[in-house]
Amino acid sequence: MGKTTDAAEDESGNGIPTMRTAETLLRILPMALCLAALVIMLKDSQTNEYGALSYSDLGAFRYLVHASGVCAGYSLLSAVVAAVPRPSTMSRAWAFFLLDQLLTYIILAAGAISTEVVYLAYKGDASVTWSESCSSYGSFCRKATASVALTFIVTLCYAGLSLFSSYRLFSKYDAPLAYATSKGIEATTFHI
Amino acid sequence: MGKTTDAAEDESGNGIPTMRTAETLLRILPMALCLAALVIMLKDSQTNEYGALSYSDLGAFRYLVHASGVCAGYSLLSAVVAAVPRPSTMSRAWAFFLLDQLLTYIILAAGAISTEVVYLAYKGDASVTWSESCSSYGSFCRKATASVALTFIVTLCYAGLSLFSSYRLFSKYDAPLAYATSKGIEATTFHI
Repeated sequence: MGKTTDAAEDESGNGIPTMRTAETLLRILPMALCLAALVIMLKDSQTNEYGALSYSDLGAFRYLVHASGVCAGYSLLSAVVAAVPRPSTMSRAWAFFLLDQLLTYIILAAGAISTEVVYLAYKGDASVTWSESCSSYGSFCRKATASVALTFIVTLCYAGLSLFSSYRLFSKYDAPLAYATSKGIEATTFHI
Repeated sequence: MGKTTDAAEDESGNGIPTMRTAETLLRILPMALCLAALVIMLKDSQTNEYGALSYSDLGAFRYLVHASGVCAGYSLLSAVVAAVPRPSTMSRAWAFFLLDQLLTYIILAAGAISTEVVYLAYKGDASVTWSESCSSYGSFCRKATASVALTFIVTLCYAGLSLFSSYRLFSKYDAPLAYATSKGIEATTFHI
């Protein structure tokens, strides 16, 4: 944002290895959860005497499948990038920050609209003549609920990752302080 | 986060007045939009030969009303806090950052689930025997759509405010750099 110096660009690597490992694991966890939510939703269909119902009949669940796929892909990619021990640049910290933020919004929206559909499927809404469907399609509803619950855990992970990646960005901005201060002290000591 | 210094706490006020005005306006805009979305939704009811339909019959719209109310209240409060020219502390920047983030999630979820309900009201879903309602309740659906559209503009404003408040936090972390560097240069010059 024009306030950084070259020192910030070149200084320090990707943090201490423990922190790098923690970040990588924090990115692999939502990947696993996204894949689980994706697979549960993809296999979610039920046929009985009332008819057949599949996840693809409901727009919200189709969106959840796509969002989970995108999220799993991004989580894997970002975990790989985070795992490689190379100097971290400002532009990379900014990219992580913005993309983590965007993914949080995408996955939160998927969880929210799917929750609404699951709620309507369980309760129905008499005023607009939407009948509940879960007494007929019990196993469909339970699988959908499980998938949505996993999506919310992913949302929490991503909210955490957003804070983490913004903290990473703060510490990048902070880094030149110690550098500049130690130079200042050095200069003072030297010239006294 | 333990990396700040006293200099960061005491230094500089709330930024230049232009920036303060911009932030205040950026917080008053979503307040106005939230109130508009709230009023449109609250007045959204229709009675005709098919029956009566009100926003309170749909859980998603009730949530939208509550979320808009909370958002309008927070926007007003934060605009007032942002408008007062007093020294900005780290804890205040952190509070703005976290609350802006939280409000973005709340209002995004409200917009997402209401969009899903409006979509279902327009299109229906044959596979779960949910009939469309908007041919019977046209004016209800149009008002709901307007309210949801305003909610999405609020979401965009808040996504922007989240970035803004994180930038404010970055600049706070950045602030001591110039301070420390100028001290260093001063020390060097003095002792040579």
